[in-house]
Amino acid sequence: MSKVRIAVDCMGGDNAPTEIVKGCVEALKTGDDTLVLVGKSGIINSELSKYKYDKERIEIVDAPEVIENDEIPTNAIRRKKNSSMVLGLNLVKEGKANAFISAGNTGALLAGATVIVGRIKGVERPCLATLIPTEKGPSLLMDVGANTDCKPNYIVQFAKMGSVYFENVMGVKNPKVGIVNIGVEEEKGNLMTREAHKLLNETDLNFIGNAEARDLLTHVADVLVCDGFVGNIILKFGEGMATTLFRMVKNSLMSSFIAKIGAVLCLKPIKALVKTMDYSEVGGAPFLGLTSLVVKAHGASNAKAIVGAVNQCRSFIEKDIVNKIQKKFKLGLDK
Amino acid sequence: MSKVRIAVDCMGGDNAPTEIVKGCVEALKTGDDTLVLVGKSGIINSELSKYKYDKERIEIVDAPEVIENDEIPTNAIRRKKNSSMVLGLNLVKEGKANAFISAGNTGALLAGATVIVGRIKGVERPCLATLIPTEKGPSLLMDVGANTDCKPNYIVQFAKMGSVYFENVMGVKNPKVGIVNIGVEEEKGNLMTREAHKLLNETDLNFIGNAEARDLLTHVADVLVCDGFVGNIILKFGEGMATTLFRMVKNSLMSSFIAKIGAVLCLKPIKALVKTMDYSEVGGAPFLGLTSLVVKAHGASNAKAIVGAVNQCRSFIEKDIVNKIQKKFKLGLDK
Repeated sequence: MSKVRIAVDCMGGDNAPTEIVKGCVEALKTGDDTLVLVGKSGIINSELSKYKYDKERIEIVDAPEVIENDEIPTNAIRRKKNSSMVLGLNLVKEGKANAFISAGNTGALLAGATVIVGRIKGVERPCLATLIPTEKGPSLLMDVGANTDCKPNYIVQFAKMGSVYFENVMGVKNPKVGIVNIGVEEEKGNLMTREAHKLLNETDLNFIGNAEARDLLTHVADVLVCDGFVGNIILKFGEGMATTLFRMVKNSLMSSFIAKIGAVLCLKPIKALVKTMDYSEVGGAPFLGLTSLVVKAHGASNAKAIVGAVNQCRSFIEKDIVNKIQKKFKLGLDK
Repeated sequence: MSKVRIAVDCMGGDNAPTEIVKGCVEALKTGDDTLVLVGKSGIINSELSKYKYDKERIEIVDAPEVIENDEIPTNAIRRKKNSSMVLGLNLVKEGKANAFISAGNTGALLAGATVIVGRIKGVERPCLATLIPTEKGPSLLMDVGANTDCKPNYIVQFAKMGSVYFENVMGVKNPKVGIVNIGVEEEKGNLMTREAHKLLNETDLNFIGNAEARDLLTHVADVLVCDGFVGNIILKFGEGMATTLFRMVKNSLMSSFIAKIGAVLCLKPIKALVKTMDYSEVGGAPFLGLTSLVVKAHGASNAKAIVGAVNQCRSFIEKDIVNKIQKKFKLGLDK
């Protein structure tokens, strides 16, 4: 039995517990780690009974409470000590798991992770990072929602953490860092981005300057930094636009008999394309800057997305990202 | 000869002067107004000589200087008194034209318009508004780049101006107003949007609350307000994403012989779809809150986009939007 243990919140997300548990069972097919399923044990056992799997590699931690999506994050974390989310975060804090994945209440997970798991020394604000698909492979966009109001120095710290992650997990030496902005010229942007731009110029990062929003999907940089409000807007608008456009393409193809014949012939490559742009293929969003790994999976996660998130955790743990970020900040590079 | 006079900067934009002049000539085919072409008269005359048109309806104002795209806005406006942009704005200020359209340096146009044309009394910050195509007709997104840092009250003023515009130009009584945000719940957002949300609740506008970025293209509201940084990010990211996705669809359709046959059959409806999503069809971005009309056309404007912008000016002038905004602010509704 491997020593690596990944905890999964089986009660969070639109498709919990069915898809979450299914994803855990499927994730066993790769790797040799132990998955710790956190949630109402009766429900988890009942879901597990649908499958054949290696019982040695699944553990259950019973959590009688559930944090719902509409609860106020800090209150929920404080009051529901026996929720799957709080118990999962405790497992990570106490070293009983190497990572925790949840598709539940984002605000509660971020608040809980910061309070329970804790920040790496020197990191002012942990942030959520997401790989976004582009024409030339994924870019890492961060922050995508943990910090809606940012000081320029937070952005610099995001860039440092993102560089460590991208270099080690994606295997790109000295990754290019860009700051999301509304023009390529240095003087473009708002007060915050202009100041952050200056600070980024003074670091040892491979800073390429402003990444114009228009160019984000052409892989203008490996790591794209911005405040959590802007990052979340980009992520959500991108999701909405992809959904809308594909629906429009489909309807448009169905609009005439001739096009309908064409559509049947086109369907396969279009489906392949949708897969390329599918965020759930890429996994969850790691919360960088904590002393251990916490991953936010999409609220609409299905089994496939959970498998993606588990694989992401494996890679993150194997590459020892937490220690590498810690080292980067210890070296006094966080000026 | 109609009394309405629309001035057009023939020297600004990537395709100036050829496409701009061509667009002006084409715009003569509709309406009965006079177009005032501002720029180097030799060049304009040489472009005009390519076409047959009603010479009574074209006037030329010679402007020996040109403001380039890389010039610092305020300096350019101050120093180049004989540029097409400054002379065009002066025409509007002096009442010699009812509107001015430019596809040139955005920053210079905004700075020049505020300084030369001037704000409506009570309006703290004029803002750029753009119609964005959605599945159910256009929504008006504003600010899309004039004010990168906004106080909550600016957002409320944008909403008021946008409502007047949408009600009168688009003919939608009591248009729905939403604030662009990262969640539907009232407490979601950054400091600025949360405060603006509260203020919007206190107005007599048809405020529907937060418009989540994911839903912007499903026509969640008629008027979508945000700061100019976020609005510009949405506009540019949307443009980039549409371009990228259509290129990917095309490449994907060309990837196999069978799909290629399909692609030929699909081409027509896909082209029709591209047209639906084509921002240049919708016209330019009016700069709302000034004592007269100034329209920023896209830097990449072709003749078709110029025709769109001229038509937009006609509608704006006919509906007397400036006076209606003035009235809204005079009534003391700008609390």
